[in-house]
Amino acid sequence: MPELRKDPVVERWVIIATERARRPTDFAPEVIPLRGPDLCPFCPGHEDRTPPEVFRSGGSEDGPWTVRVVPNKFPALHADGEVHAAGEGVYDRIDGVGAHEVIIESPDHFAGLGTLSVAHVGEVLAAYRERLLALRKDPRLEYVLIFKNHGVAAGASLGHPHSQLIATPILPELVTEELQGAVRYFRMKERCVWCDIVRQERRDGARLVLDDEGFVAVSPYASRFPYEMWILPIAHRPSFESLLPDEVDALARLLRELVARLGRLFADPPYNFALHTAPLRGTEPEHFHWHLELMPKLTRVAGFELGTGFFINPTPPEDAARFLRLADTPPGVVRP
Amino acid sequence: MPELRKDPVVERWVIIATERARRPTDFAPEVIPLRGPDLCPFCPGHEDRTPPEVFRSGGSEDGPWTVRVVPNKFPALHADGEVHAAGEGVYDRIDGVGAHEVIIESPDHFAGLGTLSVAHVGEVLAAYRERLLALRKDPRLEYVLIFKNHGVAAGASLGHPHSQLIATPILPELVTEELQGAVRYFRMKERCVWCDIVRQERRDGARLVLDDEGFVAVSPYASRFPYEMWILPIAHRPSFESLLPDEVDALARLLRELVARLGRLFADPPYNFALHTAPLRGTEPEHFHWHLELMPKLTRVAGFELGTGFFINPTPPEDAARFLRLADTPPGVVRP
Repeated sequence: MPELRKDPVVERWVIIATERARRPTDFAPEVIPLRGPDLCPFCPGHEDRTPPEVFRSGGSEDGPWTVRVVPNKFPALHADGEVHAAGEGVYDRIDGVGAHEVIIESPDHFAGLGTLSVAHVGEVLAAYRERLLALRKDPRLEYVLIFKNHGVAAGASLGHPHSQLIATPILPELVTEELQGAVRYFRMKERCVWCDIVRQERRDGARLVLDDEGFVAVSPYASRFPYEMWILPIAHRPSFESLLPDEVDALARLLRELVARLGRLFADPPYNFALHTAPLRGTEPEHFHWHLELMPKLTRVAGFELGTGFFINPTPPEDAARFLRLADTPPGVVRP
Repeated sequence: MPELRKDPVVERWVIIATERARRPTDFAPEVIPLRGPDLCPFCPGHEDRTPPEVFRSGGSEDGPWTVRVVPNKFPALHADGEVHAAGEGVYDRIDGVGAHEVIIESPDHFAGLGTLSVAHVGEVLAAYRERLLALRKDPRLEYVLIFKNHGVAAGASLGHPHSQLIATPILPELVTEELQGAVRYFRMKERCVWCDIVRQERRDGARLVLDDEGFVAVSPYASRFPYEMWILPIAHRPSFESLLPDEVDALARLLRELVARLGRLFADPPYNFALHTAPLRGTEPEHFHWHLELMPKLTRVAGFELGTGFFINPTPPEDAARFLRLADTPPGVVRP
């Protein structure tokens, strides 16, 4: 019997359609080749093809680097100007002021978060933190969205490993909904809803993928997508940028392992992730618990879901978690 | 300068990124061939490959038909059973009771809503109305979603022209948000927000695509997707199923023309549409105004949007509306 499940934070209903595809081999994600390194603007030696960098990790100013952050050459939002609001009858708009940056994750065109060293993935996460701390100082901004599109089917237009950052003068809708849901829950129970989710998942185990060094990875109860995973700190932490150096390392190990497991199950599938962290200002610390939502792109359906806010997921999250637990590093392979 | 625009009903913000692709020729939507008629379960002569039909239009019981409605062979929700709700710690779920039907739009495997006769498209719309009226009688159901996935990239798995219907025991999230927004607006202004949108768009004209025989097609102010269009009745009508016979004809002419124009601009692009109609029960008639949201699938990005509720649209709706107005029937071609 299929089930309708409700996300406890944003109250989004999902159909878990148990009679459709569910095993990893039932999916054949689309892998489309992207341009090679020759013309790649993110490869070493091509640094002049991007706008000047705003952050670099490793090496001297002109020497080799491990991670670079540069403004997007075709930004969705502009860095200059004031935030003017205007109305037009029933409609509202504001000027598109903000920031749109690219986090180039490695000099290696063919690298990926599942194959880079743990220390290197840590440098990527540290770059996220640095940019969050820097952009927080801009009073025009309300939110910083950090996300990754990997693979053409997930929206990437360049093959070189990179993630993106969009800083906005307003709160994205899903963050607003999460905040409203968390505040509602807190008023009722005097507890953080994500802390309760982490506690229940660690006790129950059926949707737990990994639980290590202060972080958990779970298949969410009302997963919208097959093999969707959320990473959460076990301790209550509103903001990603509060991450301590040794936590960066533990989180890097976990994220790298999850991407590697997806790669073992689906042969480098397209995927997206989005970091959900507390708004830059005005939120009580007890009302948000940062988490990272990792969404493999294994199915094509999207229009219906986008049009209705209603998701149909053919893989029960308990099945996904079981396969993801089984996709552990093969014996004999030493993890760095 | 890019703009951030807010949908006046659901308060969803969209980035209108004016410096990216905007002309029809900037898009190359993906067209992937699907299985031909030989093995098609929806072609005439293969009627025994679907579950028994629940509605048919045209012809006698065993003779030729024009439109058939059959239960989905692999339903996302089941027709039998009671709606049991259950909790599990912080989580809620209910049994997946409902209906999942397929509206087979034509016996012709290669037909489409842009090439069928106006009368035939009207029969498809009349089938939607009949199923809405029939399913309304089932007290377990709260909502009937009617939608179409056309083309592989929009989620279709069969090439034969068809739309789908999913009846649910709960309200989809986006309908809930629309209702909340409409009620908020009504309390403030004592008017329907969609009536105000229609009035403003007809007066302003910049986003108006067609205005004919009681219906308008507009490029919505905060369009999420390039060339997105909404169809609305000009008069206030909460429910699609209240459509009168002569309105069916006018709506069929408009829908057919819009799909044909998309075909002229983009060569049979993948698209989705979703009918937003009032919930089956409990809604005040002044709080909803049915509309159909038509979303061409011209770009691939979806994961970021799904993960954050934040959309980036490279085509200002005013540009889309201009190109759609110009894509009128070529001179010399007589419209049926």
